[in-house]
Amino acid sequence: MEIEAATVDFEPIFALDGKLKLQSQVELAGTQCAYQTYGTLNADRSNAIMICHGLTGDQYVAGTNPLTGRAGWWDHVVGPGLVLDTDQYFVICTNVLGGCLGTTGPSTINPDTGQPWNMDFPVFTVADMVDLQVHLIDALGIDQLFAVIGASMGGMMALDWAARHPERVFASIPVAASWRHTAQNIAFHEVGRRAITADADWHDGAYRGLGVKPEKGLAAARMVAHITYLSETAFQEKFGRELPRDSKLSFVLDPEFEVERYLDHQGKTFVQRFDAASYMYLTRAMDYFDLAARHDGDLAAVFKGVGTRFLLVSFTSDWLFPTAESRTIVRALNANAADVSFIEIPADYGHDSFLIESATDFHDVLEGFLDGSARRRGLKP
Amino acid sequence: MEIEAATVDFEPIFALDGKLKLQSQVELAGTQCAYQTYGTLNADRSNAIMICHGLTGDQYVAGTNPLTGRAGWWDHVVGPGLVLDTDQYFVICTNVLGGCLGTTGPSTINPDTGQPWNMDFPVFTVADMVDLQVHLIDALGIDQLFAVIGASMGGMMALDWAARHPERVFASIPVAASWRHTAQNIAFHEVGRRAITADADWHDGAYRGLGVKPEKGLAAARMVAHITYLSETAFQEKFGRELPRDSKLSFVLDPEFEVERYLDHQGKTFVQRFDAASYMYLTRAMDYFDLAARHDGDLAAVFKGVGTRFLLVSFTSDWLFPTAESRTIVRALNANAADVSFIEIPADYGHDSFLIESATDFHDVLEGFLDGSARRRGLKP
Repeated sequence: MEIEAATVDFEPIFALDGKLKLQSQVELAGTQCAYQTYGTLNADRSNAIMICHGLTGDQYVAGTNPLTGRAGWWDHVVGPGLVLDTDQYFVICTNVLGGCLGTTGPSTINPDTGQPWNMDFPVFTVADMVDLQVHLIDALGIDQLFAVIGASMGGMMALDWAARHPERVFASIPVAASWRHTAQNIAFHEVGRRAITADADWHDGAYRGLGVKPEKGLAAARMVAHITYLSETAFQEKFGRELPRDSKLSFVLDPEFEVERYLDHQGKTFVQRFDAASYMYLTRAMDYFDLAARHDGDLAAVFKGVGTRFLLVSFTSDWLFPTAESRTIVRALNANAADVSFIEIPADYGHDSFLIESATDFHDVLEGFLDGSARRRGLKP
Repeated sequence: MEIEAATVDFEPIFALDGKLKLQSQVELAGTQCAYQTYGTLNADRSNAIMICHGLTGDQYVAGTNPLTGRAGWWDHVVGPGLVLDTDQYFVICTNVLGGCLGTTGPSTINPDTGQPWNMDFPVFTVADMVDLQVHLIDALGIDQLFAVIGASMGGMMALDWAARHPERVFASIPVAASWRHTAQNIAFHEVGRRAITADADWHDGAYRGLGVKPEKGLAAARMVAHITYLSETAFQEKFGRELPRDSKLSFVLDPEFEVERYLDHQGKTFVQRFDAASYMYLTRAMDYFDLAARHDGDLAAVFKGVGTRFLLVSFTSDWLFPTAESRTIVRALNANAADVSFIEIPADYGHDSFLIESATDFHDVLEGFLDGSARRRGLKP
C-alpha cells in the first residue's frame, strides 16, 4: 500500500548551518538533507560508501521503503554479505537536493514565506546536489569517502565528486553515465516537462493545497522516460504486440496492448511516490550537467592530477547513456594517467540494466573493483 | 501565415457512394476523401502514382500548401522533370481517412447527429485508409496504379496496397517502413496520446466549439514524436548543447538550449496545422498495423503469389523503422520469389531522411527504379 509522503518521518535529517551556495550563485538558507545509512562507520571513518541515486530514486536503497512498502531499489546489492557488504562498509544514501523525500526542494517550506517553495525554488545543478552531500560527510566527520557510486544521474554525481572534490573520494564508480547530457536527452526531458505543464492540474506549479496533483502529465512524463530506460530488444521480448486477454483487437483508443498497460502501470505507481515539481527541477539539473563546461570543453582538464581510482561501467543496450559516452570519459582520464577501469557489460535491458537483480556480471565487476580498492585503501588485509 | 483549416476549400473531394466497411466491421456512411493530383492521366490510365503521406502529412505534396502557405512536403521530388516527373506520371495524393484536411475524420460532421464526430468517430486502420484510396481510383477509372509510394505510415499503406490489392499495383515502394508497429513505437505513440488527454483543453475530445484546442498536449506529443524522427547524431550535430545567445546558462526551467527552442517551434507550428483528435486516431491506426496478423504471423503468406514489383528503402540512422524491419519484409518477399529491390541508404538524419532535399542518393534510387518499372510497364520505350 502506498503511503502519503507527508505522513512519513524522513529520519535522519541533516540540517546545514549557514547557506548552501548554488552554482547559480543563489544562496539557499535552511537546507536539510534526508539520508539513510547501512552498516557501521569504522574507527578511522575510512569505510564510507556514498550511493548517489538516479533521477527518481531515493535514499531507501535497502530494506523496506516506508513510502512504497516495497524493497529498496538496490536491496539485492546493499546488505550484509552482498556486493556492497554492509558488514564491511558504511553505506550512505541521501535524498538529493530538490528531491521530494525529506530533502529541501520545491515541496518543502520556503523559510522566508512559510509556504511551499513550489516554482520559486531556485534552479540547481548536479554540482549543488554533490555539495550538499559534501556538507553531510563533513558533519559525519568523514574526510574521505572510500567510494562514491551512482548510475545515471547518480553517475553524473559520482563523476562530479571526483572532478571537484578528488581528495574526498578514494574511488569513484560512475555507471551508465555521461560527462554531459546530450541534446537528445535534453529533448526527452523537455517533452516530459511539457506534458506536466500541459496538465489541467498543474496550476503553474502551485497545485499544493488545492487538493490536486498533475498526475496525468507526470504519468506521461514518466512513461516517455521509461521508454528511454529500456531497449528496443527489451520491449520486443517483454511485450511485442501482445494483447492481455485474447488475440482479438478491440479497436479502441484506450490502452489495450500489453506494452501500453505496462506503461500505464509505470505512470500510475510513479505519481503516487513522486512530486511533479521535483521532477521538473531534477530533470533540469541533469540537462545542465556538463563536466567540461567549466574548462571550456576540455574534459581532460577536468581531471587534471586526479588521484581517485575509477571504475566506469556501461551496458551494451543502453541508448540513453551509450558506451561511447563512457569511452570519452576514459580517454580524458587516461590523458591524466589516472587509475581507471572500464567495462561494457553485455545486457539487453537498456539503461535500467543497473537495477536488475539478474545483472550478475555487473555485480561481479563491482565486487571485484571494491575488493581491490579496499585492499589498496587498507580496509582489507 | 497560417490559415485556419476551416477556411480552406479542400478541392477536389471524392464522395463515396454507399458505406465504407472498416476492419472493425463498422460501416461508415457519407465518407469523403480530399485529394490532389499533379500531371495528366494518360489515355489508357496506366501512369498513375499514388503517394501515401506519413502520419502528419497531407495531400499537398507539391506546389503551395494552402494551409501553411509553404511548399508541399515533397515539392523537391514531385513536379515536371523531377524524380516523380509529372510530365510522365499522374500523381495522386489523398488526405488519409481520419485526417484533418478535408477527408472524413473526427473533425468532420457525423451525418447522424449533425455534430462533429469527435471521439465518436470509429477507430480505423491502415487497411481502411487504403480501401478508401481503392474506391477513389475506382472512381477515377484506374484499374491499376503504376506505383504506390509512401514513407513511414505511408510505407505501411504501400505494403498494404500490395498485400491486399496486388492486382491494382504494378510497383510498390515502401520507404522507411515496417510490416508491423513495434512495442517501442506503440509506447511512444501512447505517450503522445497521454500528453494530449492530460491537457486542460482536451475536454474528452469535445473541444470543438469551445474556442479552445489542447495545444500544449498536442505540442508535447509532436515533440516526442519529432525526437523519434531524428537521430542522436542529427541532434548532436544540429544542436549539441548550444545556447541561443551567449554561452552563459540562465538557470531556468524554461527552454534555453537550442534543441529545446527547436522542439518548441516544432510543437507550435504543428498545432496550427493539425487536429489533436486526428492525431489520436492516426497514431492508433499505425499501432494496429500488423500485416502478418491476418495470416497467423506468417509474413511470407501475406505476399503469396504477388505480382507487384517492390523497391524497399531504409536509412542507416532510422531507429524508428530500422533497416532490420525492411530486411524482414524482403525475406518474406523472397520466399515468394517476388521481384524485389532493397537498398539501405547511408543517412545521418534519422527516420525523416526521406523528407530531406539533400537526400540525392535516395532520389537517384527512386528515379532508377521508376524508370526501369516504366519500361517494364510499357510507359517508356
